[in-house]
Amino acid sequence: MEAGEASVEADVLNNSTNGASVEETSNIIRRNTPDGFVRHWKTWVVGRPLRTADAPHQTIGKAVGLAVFASDALSSTAYATQEILVILAAAGTLAFGYAFPISIAIVTLLAIVTISYEQTIHAYPGGGGAYIVARDNLGELPAQIAGAALLMDYILTVSVSVSSGVAQIASAYPELLPVRALIAVGMVMVIAWINLRGVRESGFVFAIPTYFFLGTMVLTLILGFFRYLTGSLGMVEAPPHLLQESIQSVSLFLILHAFANGTTALTGVEAISNGITAFKEPRSHNAGVTLIWMSVILGTLFIGLTFLIGQIGAVPSEEETVISQLARTIYDGRNIFYLVAVAATTLILIMAANTAFADFPRLGALQAADGYLPRQLTYKGSRLVYSRGVMTLAIIASLLILVFNASVSRLIPLYAIGVFMSFTLSQTGMAIRWRKIGGLKPSEELKETGSTLRHDPKWRFKMLVNGFGGLSTAVVMVIFAVTKFTEGAWVILLIIPTLVTIFFKIHNHYKNLAHALTLENYVPPANGITKSRVIIPVATVHRGTIAAIRYAKSISENVVGVHVGLNPEDYQKVEDKWKIWGEGLPLVILESPYRQLYTPILSYIKELETQKSPNEIITVVIPEFITRRWWEKWLHWHTADLLRKLFVEQPGVVIVEVPYQVE
Amino acid sequence: MEAGEASVEADVLNNSTNGASVEETSNIIRRNTPDGFVRHWKTWVVGRPLRTADAPHQTIGKAVGLAVFASDALSSTAYATQEILVILAAAGTLAFGYAFPISIAIVTLLAIVTISYEQTIHAYPGGGGAYIVARDNLGELPAQIAGAALLMDYILTVSVSVSSGVAQIASAYPELLPVRALIAVGMVMVIAWINLRGVRESGFVFAIPTYFFLGTMVLTLILGFFRYLTGSLGMVEAPPHLLQESIQSVSLFLILHAFANGTTALTGVEAISNGITAFKEPRSHNAGVTLIWMSVILGTLFIGLTFLIGQIGAVPSEEETVISQLARTIYDGRNIFYLVAVAATTLILIMAANTAFADFPRLGALQAADGYLPRQLTYKGSRLVYSRGVMTLAIIASLLILVFNASVSRLIPLYAIGVFMSFTLSQTGMAIRWRKIGGLKPSEELKETGSTLRHDPKWRFKMLVNGFGGLSTAVVMVIFAVTKFTEGAWVILLIIPTLVTIFFKIHNHYKNLAHALTLENYVPPANGITKSRVIIPVATVHRGTIAAIRYAKSISENVVGVHVGLNPEDYQKVEDKWKIWGEGLPLVILESPYRQLYTPILSYIKELETQKSPNEIITVVIPEFITRRWWEKWLHWHTADLLRKLFVEQPGVVIVEVPYQVE
Repeated sequence: MEAGEASVEADVLNNSTNGASVEETSNIIRRNTPDGFVRHWKTWVVGRPLRTADAPHQTIGKAVGLAVFASDALSSTAYATQEILVILAAAGTLAFGYAFPISIAIVTLLAIVTISYEQTIHAYPGGGGAYIVARDNLGELPAQIAGAALLMDYILTVSVSVSSGVAQIASAYPELLPVRALIAVGMVMVIAWINLRGVRESGFVFAIPTYFFLGTMVLTLILGFFRYLTGSLGMVEAPPHLLQESIQSVSLFLILHAFANGTTALTGVEAISNGITAFKEPRSHNAGVTLIWMSVILGTLFIGLTFLIGQIGAVPSEEETVISQLARTIYDGRNIFYLVAVAATTLILIMAANTAFADFPRLGALQAADGYLPRQLTYKGSRLVYSRGVMTLAIIASLLILVFNASVSRLIPLYAIGVFMSFTLSQTGMAIRWRKIGGLKPSEELKETGSTLRHDPKWRFKMLVNGFGGLSTAVVMVIFAVTKFTEGAWVILLIIPTLVTIFFKIHNHYKNLAHALTLENYVPPANGITKSRVIIPVATVHRGTIAAIRYAKSISENVVGVHVGLNPEDYQKVEDKWKIWGEGLPLVILESPYRQLYTPILSYIKELETQKSPNEIITVVIPEFITRRWWEKWLHWHTADLLRKLFVEQPGVVIVEVPYQVE
Repeated sequence: MEAGEASVEADVLNNSTNGASVEETSNIIRRNTPDGFVRHWKTWVVGRPLRTADAPHQTIGKAVGLAVFASDALSSTAYATQEILVILAAAGTLAFGYAFPISIAIVTLLAIVTISYEQTIHAYPGGGGAYIVARDNLGELPAQIAGAALLMDYILTVSVSVSSGVAQIASAYPELLPVRALIAVGMVMVIAWINLRGVRESGFVFAIPTYFFLGTMVLTLILGFFRYLTGSLGMVEAPPHLLQESIQSVSLFLILHAFANGTTALTGVEAISNGITAFKEPRSHNAGVTLIWMSVILGTLFIGLTFLIGQIGAVPSEEETVISQLARTIYDGRNIFYLVAVAATTLILIMAANTAFADFPRLGALQAADGYLPRQLTYKGSRLVYSRGVMTLAIIASLLILVFNASVSRLIPLYAIGVFMSFTLSQTGMAIRWRKIGGLKPSEELKETGSTLRHDPKWRFKMLVNGFGGLSTAVVMVIFAVTKFTEGAWVILLIIPTLVTIFFKIHNHYKNLAHALTLENYVPPANGITKSRVIIPVATVHRGTIAAIRYAKSISENVVGVHVGLNPEDYQKVEDKWKIWGEGLPLVILESPYRQLYTPILSYIKELETQKSPNEIITVVIPEFITRRWWEKWLHWHTADLLRKLFVEQPGVVIVEVPYQVE
């Protein structure tokens, strides 16, 4: 260490005594900042900053876990039946009878997926989302496909859930129908804001709406079945207008289409496998049991609701949801019980959107850490939240809501393909993993990123389970893509490959950049910088110019002013002032007959470059006055900014800004 | 001149031999750039750059002058009658009979304004727009009011004229009605594009549409009157639906309202007074004669059209203009003659919009030169056009068209108040000018910015003429404001004061800034800069960092690296690399428990500032890698940008960017 540097360090040590602790290792000085945050308008909006060390570590039990992770899945019962009926309506109200058998098929699929995911949970105690499972077992391309599919679907979860929530409210208060898109966007913004403040997922608060919904729905079903069995249920009074008239006969295509729409009931089932680490030990066991409970409840609710909705002759409509029709039939009108049921449904739907707000940024950060999304997504904001992810999700979901005017039926064709794509990739990945395990000797272990592979005598059976799960969801995905293709599914089938292409473009960029910047085997240029030629672009000569001249003289012997002359009257003035204030430095006037402001300087610099010696560097010293108020900058050429943008592209040019603060 | 600087100059002289001529006066070097422009996509869009010296100097005679400047005024006949009828329709079709007397009153007003403006033209041979006349005779506030009123009205001229042009087209091709706003915006864009390429106002090409319109209209009127006198004119066949049913009786308010709507016929009369310099000598005389000719033609057309429109029982409508109804009645159906008449009307309306595209940027540049609008508006682009003004006008006019769905009747309430406000200010200014002249002795002269005041024996009469003109237009303006207040005129009455306030805010900013930056009586700080403390913010250590370290060492002995440490694992890596590559410089780790990236550096710098000596300056050397493709910058923190924005606000801190271009 040389004398000059040692003194800097001593200085640094001197001023760091006021409250900050200092730690020294050789020429490295560590200082912590005692009060590192500045109070700011943001503090009022998103709350006091949290220390990195404040990250929550508490874990949750099965009952709370069910509440936290089930809201997305359970909320699907609020729209899945309706979306089956919407399709069947094309063949007339008689076709509504197919809804119940279709719901049985969907619940069977649910059982398959549940068993399959239960195995994933045990294999990946550290969290086994489709992205991780695909990455570890299938490779980068399938992982990125899963990532793209899931990101898309989280966005749609927000749009669909919030739109459905608003549809429930509008069923009770039809006067809100015209402004439903605005209400939905407002809700998204509120949820985003809550998430920017940071939500403790494990919070007890989350349990309330889920159990409130569960209690209300169970009560509604029990009362409904009681009235059905006693014959006092009756038909829905004053049903809303049917969405469309009977125009076609019942076909296999129609049934499959209705089935595909209904499988939206399965969205959210994967939530627990993402969040295993939140559970108390033995966490895989607890998470697995919670998953099974969740599926049982989901299946029961879905079948029960579909059955009763069929019995009362409810009609799918944009004006009133079938859940609302069922509730007012069972409770005999729009009374307080009815309102409670509608409120509970709305609440759970909003909770479901909230789940996506937890998952989307987390997955984004995972992909960003792997270098497939912009690095900025890995940064946790002042409240320990991936704030950029939260905002991205809020904006895209809001745009979707506005474009589709908050219509669930119009959003549904886009939805759930991503979920089933990720189901398929995740289960296929698991099947391949079991095959790898099958090749292991009894005592052998294989460490992977997300999990450890250990011998398992039942690997063959488990492989079949996951394989069958994967196959089933793949078939559903194809049914989805085919039956909903013209309705909008093609958009998703275009977007996913596009996203994957973008992800790999991003990945290549980071790889190439790392390669271009790495210091491994780097031999820096032999000749150091010993001299600097300085040019000062001068628009007019003012106090800021003098500050720049002085700074330039302090770093180089070789300084020249440069003025782009648009017309002789103007540059005569600059010349006159320079003669007085230029401290004897030369001034070059670049005449610009085409009134270009920057290219003359650029070509002048290029000319200088051709004749500088290798140890010389060109420095552009830009005088800049800084105005106080934000709007004042619109009243000036942003010369300094534009010059910077021009010169950073020039190799061997360094840019110096000498700001002059205007009082 | 010292040795170091002399050598720079010698260098400069050496490299400037390749084609560029060099002129030297003391230490000032002038160079002209032989081929100063770079071929660029812009060249294809707006054309080859033009030299400042290429500005056109040719002047025009009366016949071409009439064509160039009359399009705006004459085009108003395309909608003025219709807008009178729209108001009268409120009292039923019988009230349409009032249209003709109203048109007589309007033409009387036209005569007053014409005589008044004729005097202005002689007084201001250098161009006597309302802004200049008000500024020279009434002061800054009235001038800025006139400026605001005129800018508003140029915008409305574009919106109204283009909307009316599209309404003519849609009258002939009703299937275009639903997309009329889009067509109108498209037209505005085309006109803006033509103006960005630069239009030679004095061009002969401009004469064609005006004389085509004039010829067609005169023919239509002659044939119309012939058929009227021979009794073969008849009524309009299949008139469109009336805009509104009869709901009120004829009242004075209604008549005044209709009159106010009709005075839109006078918009554009001021055009010649703005463009006097374009005329051949004796230019005031030629311009004056042209103005009178224009008014006579305008008055004749307007009265003639209004009379015939009344005779055929035309009905004002959004579907078909009354001009279209008249043309198809006179020409017996939608034949080729009809189409020619409609085409001529459309063309002249588009020419009128084009006039506003010449006037708006010119007025904007005038106000900007006086310091009431952003200076950038004074800059002529590569095609010698005030391009920012052109784009501003195009954008605002397009927005208006979209908001009002290209409906002339809905735009009209906003229109013409500004014109009459500027008429009033201009004529009042002239009257005051005559009073000043009345105080002059026969041989005395008084130089003002825009004109010279000379004794005139007839000053009293001329003062009365202008005074009466100003009074008349003031009365019309009040009628306007009152009768159209609730329809939308209140918007204008709010916007104009707001604009004027903004103009003065801008003016104050420029004044204060000039005061803060002036070198008059400036005593620069006594102590020069002799030392620099350099800090290098280090995010990661890469090749770009090494370039920055080297540069920093070349300008100072006192260099320290600074790293904001978010978590120990990460900053350990930075420390390890720094030990190898840091060239022995100290590195300060600023621990940031709240994950803030910039505030720790900022407070570190503030700390350094408190203890630096007066001749020392703090320099922040920012390493920055520059990626090749535009989208790649989205994949990185814009650390360099953000740090710059932070540090330019800090007095006594200089920012150095050392770019490292990634291959």
